[in-house]
Amino acid sequence: MKLHWSPRSPFVRKVMIVLKEIGFEDRVELTRNVVALHMPTPEAVLIDNPLGKIPTLVTDAGKPLYDSRVVCEYLDGLAQGGLFPSDPDARMDHLCWQSLGDGMTDILLLWRTELSRPTGAWASVTDAWRVKIRAGMRALEADAERLSEGPLGIGQISVVCTLGQLDFRWSDCDWRTHFPSLAAFHDRMLLRRSVRDTVPADDNVADNVADITAGHLWFDA
Amino acid sequence: MKLHWSPRSPFVRKVMIVLKEIGFEDRVELTRNVVALHMPTPEAVLIDNPLGKIPTLVTDAGKPLYDSRVVCEYLDGLAQGGLFPSDPDARMDHLCWQSLGDGMTDILLLWRTELSRPTGAWASVTDAWRVKIRAGMRALEADAERLSEGPLGIGQISVVCTLGQLDFRWSDCDWRTHFPSLAAFHDRMLLRRSVRDTVPADDNVADNVADITAGHLWFDA
Repeated sequence: MKLHWSPRSPFVRKVMIVLKEIGFEDRVELTRNVVALHMPTPEAVLIDNPLGKIPTLVTDAGKPLYDSRVVCEYLDGLAQGGLFPSDPDARMDHLCWQSLGDGMTDILLLWRTELSRPTGAWASVTDAWRVKIRAGMRALEADAERLSEGPLGIGQISVVCTLGQLDFRWSDCDWRTHFPSLAAFHDRMLLRRSVRDTVPADDNVADNVADITAGHLWFDA
Repeated sequence: MKLHWSPRSPFVRKVMIVLKEIGFEDRVELTRNVVALHMPTPEAVLIDNPLGKIPTLVTDAGKPLYDSRVVCEYLDGLAQGGLFPSDPDARMDHLCWQSLGDGMTDILLLWRTELSRPTGAWASVTDAWRVKIRAGMRALEADAERLSEGPLGIGQISVVCTLGQLDFRWSDCDWRTHFPSLAAFHDRMLLRRSVRDTVPADDNVADNVADITAGHLWFDA
């Protein structure tokens, strides 16, 4: 299988955690791609995914699959990994955590692009995003014990990728002070090699100089 | 059950089509909400979905579910409707059509917001979106026969909502001329009451005057 990949994408990270958890890491060849909302999409990605996004997986049969939800469910199904529970209630818990985590991650990515706009950010939009990220963090904090104690599934994997994105690109937001149970959940997840080995890292230091997100996301005391 | 709903949202439409197909229309109470990227989120939505988006379903047990993918899968599971096939290959076909359809719909919604920005649209972004919508339409045209002939599932439902959004908000793009097989698929889907009765309609004529999308999306000869 082939995976359109990047070490910085939180959605690719979901797939990498799943691959490591099910022991399929060696069955996938990684192809590095850089995609961004305001850049032309690389043809190599576009040919497999018209949306021009990563992760995109090409199966051994040559079928392209996307987005991260579909790829993770496919891989988990291949391996019978149990990360997408079949029990209806447990499944809905995990799918809904995944929606919330992915939705928050989407906002964080869009927000960063918004802050890099030549004409400046649209405050009505960023104000609404701040409200949503805060509401999402409160909801996750309320669920942190269930996330920590339940069997690992796509729910925890998605949420840890959201929290990792906060650490990676919103490093001054100090979320741990305001959401201590979620911080404990995150620490516990980091005990897993799959999570620890996929923490996003910047291999291009210049990108991190004068981080454009500083001061834009904070939580109330 | 309660559904945060709007007659104009293509993602809500997916849920409404599913409800009609499985015969559950009477089991859901609709609550109208208007949400938009650049507007404060209504508290009534935010309390059930931190992302402030619709559709959001509240189950009879009081659990909020979102987004449209999760809600549709939940309802289909309740009714054993078969819209999310259990056969792995068929399931991946439908989930991937859903990803493509939903991803295109997402772009169409973001693009329209982009065109309403006080500072004007960012051409690097809208140019990339045009490329993606074109690539997506070519991919769907190539699959149109399989979409038309296969048993109804979430794949066709998602795609029909994307095409409906083109008709509703991008009415000058003339997609039928360039994608005739997809046009035939769309006609065939309109034979279903679930699809016909959910075609989006503007109940506020003022919104449609001087449509901001005119001239922005076109397909090559």
